[in-house]
Amino acid sequence: MPETAIQDHYPDDYAQCYGCGRLNDKGLHVRSFYDGEVSTCRFTPRDEHLAIRGIVYGGLVASIIDCHATGTAAAAATLAAGDEISPETVRRFVTAHLGVDFLAPTPAGVELECRAVCSEVKARKVVVEVELRAGEKLTARAKVICVEAPPELFENA
Amino acid sequence: MPETAIQDHYPDDYAQCYGCGRLNDKGLHVRSFYDGEVSTCRFTPRDEHLAIRGIVYGGLVASIIDCHATGTAAAAATLAAGDEISPETVRRFVTAHLGVDFLAPTPAGVELECRAVCSEVKARKVVVEVELRAGEKLTARAKVICVEAPPELFENA
Repeated sequence: MPETAIQDHYPDDYAQCYGCGRLNDKGLHVRSFYDGEVSTCRFTPRDEHLAIRGIVYGGLVASIIDCHATGTAAAAATLAAGDEISPETVRRFVTAHLGVDFLAPTPAGVELECRAVCSEVKARKVVVEVELRAGEKLTARAKVICVEAPPELFENA
Repeated sequence: MPETAIQDHYPDDYAQCYGCGRLNDKGLHVRSFYDGEVSTCRFTPRDEHLAIRGIVYGGLVASIIDCHATGTAAAAATLAAGDEISPETVRRFVTAHLGVDFLAPTPAGVELECRAVCSEVKARKVVVEVELRAGEKLTARAKVICVEAPPELFENA
């Protein structure tokens, strides 16, 4: 597993994201590590990230999955094109569809682990399948359809 | 349209949610208003809620939709049972599936409006269809399958 997160390679104009941007002071700072097959992210929710007492907020679960998936898509598409992942080469992906099945309550006070694999990798579309666990407990499963970000998105970035 | 939000009726042990709980000091405070047919929520993202500069974070869009849908489901199921909505009567729903299609970038600096209708209302399952607009622009569409919260969820709440 690489020591550098996918998001550490994002250029500055792609690093403002509330979910995963290293330049967003108030953000969640999701970080994803991809070994070319499986992409992993560990995240400890903040005390305020509750649905009810003892249970993690589903919107946070969806947010972690979302950023982990787009990061994984960026990495997979970059590698599939034969490039190393770097700020100059890393592809930019956004979410077209986020589908999350909440299988069980996600307990608070536990580090969460997301594991993702890509079931489809094309230059402009990557499908990412994600499982989220709290300890050993599988609590959410997701399918995320990521598409290449149109360059005009970054005109004001 | 009622003046009281659905979430204002939630009892205290159901009001801790990061997305919509009135008792969560750091939360988003999503508030949903249901006229018996259409449920509406208005939300202005914080400055930090960015994906990239000028574009709202998709995880935030998903979070607003999630809480708006479960609130709408709670209200619809309560009314369908013949009850008024009150802290004593309001049903409790959680998300089983959250499916969001991101149709276009959601511009920052604009108040967002979610509108939801229920396409299926059963005592233990409500399907909520949501559209999210930034001004006139439709930017996300979602289908949320909500199920009645099992009472044991609240044992530690």
